[in-house]
Amino acid sequence: MKVTFQIEGGNPVVVECSAGDNLLELARRANVAIDAPCSGNGSCGKCRVKLLEGDVESVPSRHISPEEYAEGWRLSCSCRVTGDCTVFVPDIASAYQSRMKTADLSSPKEIAIFEECQQKLRQSGIEFTNNFRSVVLSLPEPSLDDTMPDIERLTWAVEEALGVGHVQVPFPVMVRLASTLREHNFTVCLKGELQGDTFRCMEICGPEDTAIVACAIDIGTTTVTMVLTDLTTGKLLAKGSSGNGQIRYGADVINRIIEQGKPGGKKKLQDAILKETLNPIIANLCKAAGISARSILRLSVGANTTMNHLFVGVDASPVRMEPYIPSFFGWEGLLAGDLKLVANPLAPVIIAPNIGSYVGGDITAGTLASGIWDRDEMSLFIDLGTNGEIVFGNRDFLMSCACSAGPAFEGGDISCGMRATDGAVEACTIDKDTMEPTLSIIGDEGQKCVGICGSGIIDIISELFRCGIINAKGLFIREGDRVRRDSHGMGRYVIADSHESETGREVSINEVDIDNFIRAKGAIFSAIDTLLKSVDMTPECIDDVYVAGGIGSGINMRNAVNIGMFPDVELEKFHYIGNSSLTGAYAMVLSDQANAKCAEVAANMTYLELSTYPGYMDSFVAACFLPHTDRSLFPSCEAGQ
Amino acid sequence: MKVTFQIEGGNPVVVECSAGDNLLELARRANVAIDAPCSGNGSCGKCRVKLLEGDVESVPSRHISPEEYAEGWRLSCSCRVTGDCTVFVPDIASAYQSRMKTADLSSPKEIAIFEECQQKLRQSGIEFTNNFRSVVLSLPEPSLDDTMPDIERLTWAVEEALGVGHVQVPFPVMVRLASTLREHNFTVCLKGELQGDTFRCMEICGPEDTAIVACAIDIGTTTVTMVLTDLTTGKLLAKGSSGNGQIRYGADVINRIIEQGKPGGKKKLQDAILKETLNPIIANLCKAAGISARSILRLSVGANTTMNHLFVGVDASPVRMEPYIPSFFGWEGLLAGDLKLVANPLAPVIIAPNIGSYVGGDITAGTLASGIWDRDEMSLFIDLGTNGEIVFGNRDFLMSCACSAGPAFEGGDISCGMRATDGAVEACTIDKDTMEPTLSIIGDEGQKCVGICGSGIIDIISELFRCGIINAKGLFIREGDRVRRDSHGMGRYVIADSHESETGREVSINEVDIDNFIRAKGAIFSAIDTLLKSVDMTPECIDDVYVAGGIGSGINMRNAVNIGMFPDVELEKFHYIGNSSLTGAYAMVLSDQANAKCAEVAANMTYLELSTYPGYMDSFVAACFLPHTDRSLFPSCEAGQ
Repeated sequence: MKVTFQIEGGNPVVVECSAGDNLLELARRANVAIDAPCSGNGSCGKCRVKLLEGDVESVPSRHISPEEYAEGWRLSCSCRVTGDCTVFVPDIASAYQSRMKTADLSSPKEIAIFEECQQKLRQSGIEFTNNFRSVVLSLPEPSLDDTMPDIERLTWAVEEALGVGHVQVPFPVMVRLASTLREHNFTVCLKGELQGDTFRCMEICGPEDTAIVACAIDIGTTTVTMVLTDLTTGKLLAKGSSGNGQIRYGADVINRIIEQGKPGGKKKLQDAILKETLNPIIANLCKAAGISARSILRLSVGANTTMNHLFVGVDASPVRMEPYIPSFFGWEGLLAGDLKLVANPLAPVIIAPNIGSYVGGDITAGTLASGIWDRDEMSLFIDLGTNGEIVFGNRDFLMSCACSAGPAFEGGDISCGMRATDGAVEACTIDKDTMEPTLSIIGDEGQKCVGICGSGIIDIISELFRCGIINAKGLFIREGDRVRRDSHGMGRYVIADSHESETGREVSINEVDIDNFIRAKGAIFSAIDTLLKSVDMTPECIDDVYVAGGIGSGINMRNAVNIGMFPDVELEKFHYIGNSSLTGAYAMVLSDQANAKCAEVAANMTYLELSTYPGYMDSFVAACFLPHTDRSLFPSCEAGQ
Repeated sequence: MKVTFQIEGGNPVVVECSAGDNLLELARRANVAIDAPCSGNGSCGKCRVKLLEGDVESVPSRHISPEEYAEGWRLSCSCRVTGDCTVFVPDIASAYQSRMKTADLSSPKEIAIFEECQQKLRQSGIEFTNNFRSVVLSLPEPSLDDTMPDIERLTWAVEEALGVGHVQVPFPVMVRLASTLREHNFTVCLKGELQGDTFRCMEICGPEDTAIVACAIDIGTTTVTMVLTDLTTGKLLAKGSSGNGQIRYGADVINRIIEQGKPGGKKKLQDAILKETLNPIIANLCKAAGISARSILRLSVGANTTMNHLFVGVDASPVRMEPYIPSFFGWEGLLAGDLKLVANPLAPVIIAPNIGSYVGGDITAGTLASGIWDRDEMSLFIDLGTNGEIVFGNRDFLMSCACSAGPAFEGGDISCGMRATDGAVEACTIDKDTMEPTLSIIGDEGQKCVGICGSGIIDIISELFRCGIINAKGLFIREGDRVRRDSHGMGRYVIADSHESETGREVSINEVDIDNFIRAKGAIFSAIDTLLKSVDMTPECIDDVYVAGGIGSGINMRNAVNIGMFPDVELEKFHYIGNSSLTGAYAMVLSDQANAKCAEVAANMTYLELSTYPGYMDSFVAACFLPHTDRSLFPSCEAGQ
């Protein structure tokens, strides 16, 4: 039988299949992008499709209302094929990829934060120098009296120009040597790396192209961000970002690891990040910067442990199975050519070192960028992504841990949740008397509400709590026009009625959503709490809090403290440091000293495995209230009750 | 319009084309193998095809008799397409590839020669040792108390087992690390190379596979020969040979260089040697030896300068155009993975160094194997292939030069010439009285005559001269049943009448053939003569003559001297040393000292460019007689006149 996917804004895809095939699985096999953050277990309700022709067998879901069901809406993960059918697939995934709001240096504010971090690294004594060089050489033209082979002619000239004793000419340069010399009348530009007394050639080209370029990449579970920079001056040449193409194989690392463990999965996941995500961006950036991809002589990657494994194409299954052993923490030896990255094939790819299965190179690079390793003051570094990672310490010690915040911050576990794209509520205040909301919605003027993103959820829950609309357990305790209940008595707060929303569907937040979110924020807080306790410290010891990650930029810190997500310290101690993984990767790709420092930071960082740490579960349970079971921890909390 | 090639013993190939397309070109474009040693200039007459349907426009040729023409035989190089047609393509090329007789260690005699050369190298102080190692490691299995990542676990074990300070884990090993460790319960075999204090991993596999293997390859213009050998013991594991797949792009290096200079030509020629020739043989040898291709950790290549360039994929055009500049003489840095050779992708490929445009690595490797660099006695080393290369000297100096013997020795320029395959006359005596020949024909008992190969031509011409049937200029001066003349009066000697031959065509040698051959042997002799004169020496100074190359094994040295091809020295001074290029490559792949010695030999060898050397042309002209214009140079020559 045949299933036709009518993709919004795309060409239809027809797939042959058998009775009983799962619709979401089928879509994945056919590379049809359906947003499925929970990877098909029915919990997130995001993988909706609409039946246009034919029928499918489906399990009812709380995510589909009777009206929507009547219109043909189904959760694709809960559908089995029973005959030929045609389904409409909303353009969620690609919309997400093209309009993702992220810490990608697209605003002057982000650039300023980025440059401030670099400046601080310099002040910490990190020199931004490396051994990559480009040199224009005019070789003596051969004649019947001077019949030296090309490679010797080149070697002599390089030895003289750079004062080295040895010159390495690898294959990719050798195969272009004869023709490049002759095309340019024996005046050429040679690019490569000094390694002690040896110059390792990486590129030969005409004398007009002397650019040597580095590429720093942050591979997030959800988003990929990168910059091209001049290897000599550090000048930003181009920047770009997009969603991580692996998103259709699951929103979190666990689902991706499961997916890559299936037959052919490793290649599928690797292709999704390399061919579908990174290479197109790099190619675009090269075009924008007017450089040849072969001028990219070094790359660096800040990514979590799982992303690092999937990127390299190494089996990640052992990472999630006891005893949780990654293939590598730090690893030198990767070349761009190994992965067929759009770059010089000989370019080394620096991987910021992981330090545990769930504290990866994004955190070590981020810690490097934060500068906390060089301070006497005690700092807390929090990277809020799909996972939450936390580092605490100063120049004397660094402790780290990870907690599974789950997809709540990105809208995954929230019925009207969404990622921070057009139509998302990113901020909200509620009038205590009327209970009417005032919304800030991402997008152009007049953009109507589609759903709620992470920073919006924090605001709404904080405001509901402050206004006494919900209690410490997240249950509704006031009634009113905006507060409604379903037939089972479950309460919800309506942010946009069906006639006010972009989609014609009500946008609201219900008790299950709030409960999901409280568990997410509880995971973050209890992780911080446990980390502090592990070194016999309390929140009073915290001198500064550095918050990184895309969601961090939109967070109202007052509200985040109010609901007990962050410890109750003075607001001026909070600093948003943008995409610290990218900032760290940028420093590492340009500076050999930054590179060495990151390895040192990683080697000195202690990893606390929370799941087996005594007291963590108690701390987590205690944190699953607004703001906390122990109100004395949050003296500044404003609550209606 | 369409041309259908009906390939003998193969599937038909249909090619779209335009009116006026050259049939041989068309066949090459479609990868249809047609034997064309002269590369389509109409001189060799080997590219015959037979029209089955339709017609073509063709130029008459002396190589096609009126009867053959009537039957539909044409020279494909002289045909232009005028409409749809079907042509029969004789299976010459593949027959050639599968039945080539060559110095490939297939006989006990060849093996004995091969082993004697190795023995002499050892006596010269060359140790057969290298730094490749295979080691079985039992790693402690990870646990919750020992969560070291795989790469660190491996590194520690290697450092301990081999006493090194550093371990390099390149990409191809890294991607297989996790799964290999777990498949084999953390007891694995690691293979790689010691580089000072560093072990460079190249392969990880199960503990049962500890083989580490080297592959030595001789790439001749016409024939490819290789051996697999144990890297530790030097034991021969497998050996094989075939024709060089580039043969259909021309028999000699000049035609190949022209062909590779055409659009897409470089890749075509490289594919012909790599994909069509080397990789299938290596794969077969691995199967025969019962080893995995990833166990091949080092390769070496002995090849002439042009073959080296085409093999690497470097533009060879400058090699044949003034001022004749190759891309490289020696070059380190090539890896098997660069060329996608069937071998460990990290395996270094040693290229025996070239020393001039026409004296290549086959000669430096061959000189190494000959041992002449370690002797006080004056030795002449002659490698007879498609080109003839000559080295003269001893431990104090080495002079070398190359001469274009042309395809005569392989049957290219001789009307009934053929390579040394089934049906070729390889030896011949002639009764002085009756002028009847006694033939030795390659092949099984009862094999009838197809043509004449190089060693046969030498014998026939020597015998014709000894019997007074031809004079010193190669013209027929006796009449008889076996001596016939065509309508222009051109004489020929009939070796096999049409009813005696395999093909039903007369096998004979005519005055044009003899003239072609005299020029070939004259080129060899005058090269030797010039080389000797360049160091003020005479043939009396020669203590030994080492003859290498496939044709060398069949040569009757007495006859070769008799016609003035080799200098007239005592017959016991001649030594046949087999495929010295392969022997040298074998030594280099196993022994780091042999490798260094070959570089030293190459660096100390002086290259004499004959084409510009004063006196060479006079010497050549003087040598174009039987045996020579100066008979005093050949006191032992037996001649009828």
